[in-house]
Amino acid sequence: MLTHSHVRSIEWGDCDPAGIVFHPRYLAYFDHATCLLFARAGFDLTTLQARFGVLGYPVVDLHSRFTTPCRFGDEVRIETRVAEFRNSSFDVHHRLYRGADLAVEATVTRVWAGPHPDDPQRLQARPVPEAVRVALGTE
Amino acid sequence: MLTHSHVRSIEWGDCDPAGIVFHPRYLAYFDHATCLLFARAGFDLTTLQARFGVLGYPVVDLHSRFTTPCRFGDEVRIETRVAEFRNSSFDVHHRLYRGADLAVEATVTRVWAGPHPDDPQRLQARPVPEAVRVALGTE
Amino acid sequence: MLTHSHVRSIEWGDCDPAGIVFHPRYLAYFDHATCLLFARAGFDLTTLQARFGVLGYPVVDLHSRFTTPCRFGDEVRIETRVAEFRNSSFDVHHRLYRGADLAVEATVTRVWAGPHPDDPQRLQARPVPEAVRVALGTE
Amino acid sequence: MLTHSHVRSIEWGDCDPAGIVFHPRYLAYFDHATCLLFARAGFDLTTLQARFGVLGYPVVDLHSRFTTPCRFGDEVRIETRVAEFRNSSFDVHHRLYRGADLAVEATVTRVWAGPHPDDPQRLQARPVPEAVRVALGTE
Repeated sequence: MLTHSHVRSIEWGDCDPAGIVFHPRYLAYFDHATCLLFARAGFDLTTLQARFGVLGYPVVDLHSRFTTPCRFGDEVRIETRVAEFRNSSFDVHHRLYRGADLAVEATVTRVWAGPHPDDPQRLQARPVPEAVRVALGTE
Repeated sequence: MLTHSHVRSIEWGDCDPAGIVFHPRYLAYFDHATCLLFARAGFDLTTLQARFGVLGYPVVDLHSRFTTPCRFGDEVRIETRVAEFRNSSFDVHHRLYRGADLAVEATVTRVWAGPHPDDPQRLQARPVPEAVRVALGTE
Repeated sequence: MLTHSHVRSIEWGDCDPAGIVFHPRYLAYFDHATCLLFARAGFDLTTLQARFGVLGYPVVDLHSRFTTPCRFGDEVRIETRVAEFRNSSFDVHHRLYRGADLAVEATVTRVWAGPHPDDPQRLQARPVPEAVRVALGTE
Repeated sequence: MLTHSHVRSIEWGDCDPAGIVFHPRYLAYFDHATCLLFARAGFDLTTLQARFGVLGYPVVDLHSRFTTPCRFGDEVRIETRVAEFRNSSFDVHHRLYRGADLAVEATVTRVWAGPHPDDPQRLQARPVPEAVRVALGTE
């Protein structure tokens, strides 16, 4: 699978009074990492919307483990890849490293979603296009 | 002017490693307070969009003073009112009290904005409707 | 188990360009709900720190499902209770309802943590005090 | 004055249902930019705390103008410098560019703060050290 890796600085405003990252912020980091992975594969959200008529890939399930607390000033490395494609959903796997330590890990399930034909405000799951599978599935 | 007052609990995730509210969070509190003020006057955003075709009232200028730090567990009171209407913009004044202390104060200038006729992605300032002025201007 | 239930308004700043709550914000809601549950049981964080010398109860594992998207202006009800106590960790279960719909559900594992005797910057798991178990375990 | 310039990607979670950056997020960007500026000058927060016994430089006043809305996927450039030092406070000036457009501008007043001798929970303003003035004042 295509893996996207990037470095991110832990910001003061990401941390709580215990001096460690407020855990929802890691999920925001991973959301951004998913956008970066898709953009790297040639499918930023604007392209997806224009080419496939989808609205996005909202999260339906999330499992995360927090092993090592990170603090303001830490530089962390985030590795992101699609772990599995199913018909209209897929799992994104994230690993966040602080130095050599695997500090946070998450598996996030997302659905490929377009506007519902009966009500454009609602979302409807759609099959993930083959071109997207190929672009993200390359080693 | 119509004044909206509400109480809000300072949350753990709103505070930084110094144990005090991370200052951008106050601006998020005030944004929400503005929505509550307009809803109280009968003009929640859905109503505004349906009745006047506006997209919202984005912020163009903001001046804020932070006098007393607030901490996790504090209950604060936020008072919000429109201080002045101009043709297509208005100033919202916010006061946040911790007990009897005026802890944070802000004046936020917003524009009454609809979609630009040449490009719906862009915003265009519009005159604030009389009905809105009346509803928010009542003592 | 003691259950804490409260109502929360979805704020404009909690929502993303798709018009739905940015999913990490739900986890921030649940973090606050946990604080409210413990405070309801007589154990706000200041009390915990003073009486038991703990620093807090950081999250080590989190599993969440997102079924129904929530939007700006929705009023949601959040129900929170400890699902299980183990020796030095416990699971908090959260259910967020939009009207009658169970919109988001999460199980969050937290550890009872004090300062490590060798290094006060590090955390060390400790047994959950009996008084806390009793206060939170009452139906 | 020493100027720090860096590029930042607008993230999905930084934007609101109007599709533009939720304005408090700009203030979080600027807070981080201030930390980067001080670190560039050799005075990251850990150094400041160890060498001068200060707790930090909390914000007491903020004036910001928002001219051009930024959207998800935009790359923006943030330029940050200290505009003026006074005895125990200083003004930080931020400019955020979207392409060639000055999109957001802010002047943020901060105080040099240590623990109050009577109560370490409270903050006390202190004179900004000469070494800090020199390091940040270089063109």
